[in-house]
Amino acid sequence: MTSENRKPRIAVDAMGGDLGAESVIPGVVQAVRDGLDVQVVLYGDPEILRKGIETAGASDLGIEIEVCTQNIAMDESPASAVRGKPDSPIIKAMKHQREGKVDAVVSAGSTGAMVAASLLILGRLKSAARPAIATFIPTVKGESLLVDAGANTQCTPEMLYSFAVMGDAYCRTMQSLDEPTIGLMNIGGEKSKGNDLTVAAYAQMSESSLNFTGNVEGNEVLVGACDVLVADGFTGNIVLKMCEGLASFFKALGGSGQLENEELGALKVLAGVIGRRFNYEVYGGAPLLGVDGVSIICHGRSTPLAITYAVKAAARQVEVGLPSLIEQALASIASEEG
Amino acid sequence: MTSENRKPRIAVDAMGGDLGAESVIPGVVQAVRDGLDVQVVLYGDPEILRKGIETAGASDLGIEIEVCTQNIAMDESPASAVRGKPDSPIIKAMKHQREGKVDAVVSAGSTGAMVAASLLILGRLKSAARPAIATFIPTVKGESLLVDAGANTQCTPEMLYSFAVMGDAYCRTMQSLDEPTIGLMNIGGEKSKGNDLTVAAYAQMSESSLNFTGNVEGNEVLVGACDVLVADGFTGNIVLKMCEGLASFFKALGGSGQLENEELGALKVLAGVIGRRFNYEVYGGAPLLGVDGVSIICHGRSTPLAITYAVKAAARQVEVGLPSLIEQALASIASEEG
Repeated sequence: MTSENRKPRIAVDAMGGDLGAESVIPGVVQAVRDGLDVQVVLYGDPEILRKGIETAGASDLGIEIEVCTQNIAMDESPASAVRGKPDSPIIKAMKHQREGKVDAVVSAGSTGAMVAASLLILGRLKSAARPAIATFIPTVKGESLLVDAGANTQCTPEMLYSFAVMGDAYCRTMQSLDEPTIGLMNIGGEKSKGNDLTVAAYAQMSESSLNFTGNVEGNEVLVGACDVLVADGFTGNIVLKMCEGLASFFKALGGSGQLENEELGALKVLAGVIGRRFNYEVYGGAPLLGVDGVSIICHGRSTPLAITYAVKAAARQVEVGLPSLIEQALASIASEEG
Repeated sequence: MTSENRKPRIAVDAMGGDLGAESVIPGVVQAVRDGLDVQVVLYGDPEILRKGIETAGASDLGIEIEVCTQNIAMDESPASAVRGKPDSPIIKAMKHQREGKVDAVVSAGSTGAMVAASLLILGRLKSAARPAIATFIPTVKGESLLVDAGANTQCTPEMLYSFAVMGDAYCRTMQSLDEPTIGLMNIGGEKSKGNDLTVAAYAQMSESSLNFTGNVEGNEVLVGACDVLVADGFTGNIVLKMCEGLASFFKALGGSGQLENEELGALKVLAGVIGRRFNYEVYGGAPLLGVDGVSIICHGRSTPLAITYAVKAAARQVEVGLPSLIEQALASIASEEG
């Protein structure tokens, strides 16, 4: 990915997310302190960034600042943001990636703006039908990579198949899995179960060279049914939020006044287990697969730790050249079929 | 519903479910012993039923037996079962309901066969677009009635709207709620969020006289966002199974060897809380709303307790005349629009 023989350059939107620079700067600083061999470039308001870097005692780490005079609100229309906010961190950083000035963009800002900017500025990979958001769901057995977690609310069977191929390529490269198991989010075990979309996608995946292990039902997700969990973005987003919702469920249950002391104690212990074992922060954000570059979408509520892991994930994706590996995987199935 | 001035007659498929008569008979017996003023008729193999009633010490309770020589397997095609198994409990009981010999059918057998038999034998209510499965999801705040939990995998906005109206009528009648809150399962809070289906359904529901409170996201379901949760049957089934899956998740986590002693103890306490507070057994099965009769679908793994509650729910739905109340509700929105 790097256009010259230099350190990978990771652009980070310092203004994005519910906590903005307050969370992003300490997260970035930690990634650098951990010895990550990259050049981080923070995009945002220079006053805020300089102060934040100083507060973090990181003035000597050589973190660069790219001045941005605009910002994209969370509820802003993505398409109009791409057109109307050229000097916002997401749009400016994405343009810099297309020009080769940086090699990856990380943002906890508007997911819609990240998807739109990646698609319109970086462009799709030649063989990708549509880009998809890939997110890890922690499970009892390890984790499942959910593709798509929300970029495409209307899907065709071919799109689901391409999500499976991209997820497979991701797990082989980034997770060093030899034969990732691929599951299809559905409402029954048999191939005839589901809606028109999943029935057709099941047929296509089961005839492919993927290690397709069949349908995954709602009750199997958190147990850990497969390495790559394929869904349309509408279904995938609901599944993801239901999994993420375990923490808020525990919190609401604890605060409901319905539990006795021993039960409240048990809830606290278990909330700790869930917080550690099912910790979304350590997964390094959600890469947008299928675009011609590295684009990492972080949760709006990202903590500094989540940002640290996202910057590291970006560096690793640049290092292995993830986009071209995904293009190869997609091109090879296209030629198989052709 | 009762065609003459007699006790309501509740038909129960004694052979259905994973446990069959072993679970159904004790459940039915308990409902009768609890003083339910109905005539229960068990449909199934007379040998097995007589023995089961005897074992339960219930020979003096006057439970009737209707001999059936066939049975529908769980994986059998619903349409061919309706045609080819006229002497199975589900089909025979449903025909008896149409003929006025019984007033309700309860089964833990094949969901597909129950939906097909209800639709083909009882028929749709005049104003119902499609029947939908209504299931309670226990939440921290109480419970939400999920409509549709799996009968319709492809939906139109008009269908989602009619699910809302049927759920509203159910909660007013059966739950004595004055203004049930109606939520739409979706992937964002704003009205513009979701897929074509949910965007159109949102517009229709927000303009209606329903107490529509907006979109419900995945993380809000178990906290308890609304009284009636509207979804297409594909999404609804995934949501339901993810909620039901909490128990298997706890079990898998406990058996994973990853927890320490204190944590295992806490898990056990909390699994007990979840088992009591989030107990699907007490909700009386899932009524199929929108058909011209009372049809209650029980979980394949129904315990005797779940059957007891389902028989009681059936009796109550017959007593209040639920189908005609739902027809009135549907007809009144049709005239509003006309």
